[in-house]
Amino acid sequence: MTARIIDGAAIAAAVRADVAHDVAAHIAIGGRRPHLSVVLVGDDPASHVYVRNKGRACEEVGMTSETIALLATTSQQKVLEVVARLNADLAVSGILVQMPLPAHIDASAVLRAIDPRKDVDGLTPTNQGLLLQGTPDLIPATPAGVLEMLRRSDIDPEGQRVVVVGRSVLVGRPLAMLLANRMPGANATVTIAHTGTRDLGAVTREADILIAAMGRPRAITAAMVKPGATVVDVGINQILDATRKSGTRLVGDVDFESVKDVAGAITPVPGGVGPMTIAMLVVSTLRAARRQEAT
Amino acid sequence: MTARIIDGAAIAAAVRADVAHDVAAHIAIGGRRPHLSVVLVGDDPASHVYVRNKGRACEEVGMTSETIALLATTSQQKVLEVVARLNADLAVSGILVQMPLPAHIDASAVLRAIDPRKDVDGLTPTNQGLLLQGTPDLIPATPAGVLEMLRRSDIDPEGQRVVVVGRSVLVGRPLAMLLANRMPGANATVTIAHTGTRDLGAVTREADILIAAMGRPRAITAAMVKPGATVVDVGINQILDATRKSGTRLVGDVDFESVKDVAGAITPVPGGVGPMTIAMLVVSTLRAARRQEAT
Repeated sequence: MTARIIDGAAIAAAVRADVAHDVAAHIAIGGRRPHLSVVLVGDDPASHVYVRNKGRACEEVGMTSETIALLATTSQQKVLEVVARLNADLAVSGILVQMPLPAHIDASAVLRAIDPRKDVDGLTPTNQGLLLQGTPDLIPATPAGVLEMLRRSDIDPEGQRVVVVGRSVLVGRPLAMLLANRMPGANATVTIAHTGTRDLGAVTREADILIAAMGRPRAITAAMVKPGATVVDVGINQILDATRKSGTRLVGDVDFESVKDVAGAITPVPGGVGPMTIAMLVVSTLRAARRQEAT
Repeated sequence: MTARIIDGAAIAAAVRADVAHDVAAHIAIGGRRPHLSVVLVGDDPASHVYVRNKGRACEEVGMTSETIALLATTSQQKVLEVVARLNADLAVSGILVQMPLPAHIDASAVLRAIDPRKDVDGLTPTNQGLLLQGTPDLIPATPAGVLEMLRRSDIDPEGQRVVVVGRSVLVGRPLAMLLANRMPGANATVTIAHTGTRDLGAVTREADILIAAMGRPRAITAAMVKPGATVVDVGINQILDATRKSGTRLVGDVDFESVKDVAGAITPVPGGVGPMTIAMLVVSTLRAARRQEAT
């Protein structure tokens, strides 16, 4: 048996098309054009690529965006002032502070300063607290993307055993809380596994839906997967590959080649969860814009 | 085999004795006497009993406490003013707003108003967010009590399979997050089960440590417990009992009589988690007092 390949790029395109439609409808009834402000401090090359992609995704769905690029030496006070100005600006629907911030800036102080209603990354204490409490509002993009991808693939976690491998702040922990919620597309029996888990394979084989998010290249092998299970690969790891011009390639946390013969459905890397993450950012920005104009 | 009975009342007394010692030491080095302010709105009889017990626990360990009792008709604005005054008062170490609040008051708005450094119940968004993120500061008393009870009983969740049955805001969800943390007394492989779980018995039988927190009298039976497992009963349910003068008695979520012959260790109800909850409130109050004076 070969698993159904879940095409994250195609699903993300469908999400963006829906958002583009909704943005046009929002504007047609007199709403403001949603606008995302990204705060980028320093010159980390990867961050610059991410931010550019986020801006492009906004334009593609008819939103505007701006990047406020600050020098690596910018003071914390100055970053807080920028956030305060964006909070107060009615034309700004969403605020995203690109991580990581330079070491001299207290990232949690900056996150605390963002108006929770504009917190499209779902990282302010208010939104994190709501997520813990089972009443999520704006949530981090990667967990949101995983849920949306399952939903659009007609894979319902309801009543299923879900095992999340990894307990990161951005993926594992929020995903476990979301999937355990009593809400459509969730209500699963969720197990959180991690580096402290004994006999990881025995735990992962219990999963009807296995989510790999531990950041270890191809660590989930065929023997760790229950036949027919859905396998979602959140990992993005760069490994050496002499056959490529670049000398490297991207792989997930799942050993795709072997696992695809055991799983019922599987997400590839690249082209799986990755594209969903950026698509969910524009979903959050639209949601934030609508909510602010409704109040 | 009969399980070891974990004596929550005795462990709670030991916790209180430690806190009393630490309070005295704190004052001896010139610290302020820790003070808990409890805000009680309305005349729910059970709430009045809880608040009285909390005040008594403070006195017992050498802390002071006050109850600010407000009429059920008090406006939200007035409650927020009281909280603001307590936030600003240097003599107040901890603030606890007794739940439930009357229906006309937005409980989450009141919780949001509490200074997180004085939030001894761990219910402000900031503290809930920290808990979600795996860097807990002040945490709700019941999950704290469960962890402390295990620690003082030499039962280490490290590497164990823990199943938490129930996903409440006050117990199941925070407890799952705490037990999955990479920290001493945690680092367990945690499963969250609930009303949406299929074949609950199969899931609970996986547990080395089973935590019952679903609020259903004696729902966990012997057949659902792995021989030798530790069973922690968070439930407090009043059931009819014609043999008692009152006509009722308290039972947990675990069928104690049958489960004690299967489990390796078990907490009774009453006298298990209940006493721990109040003991952990004074732990939190001392912690809050120390932290405020350190800064």
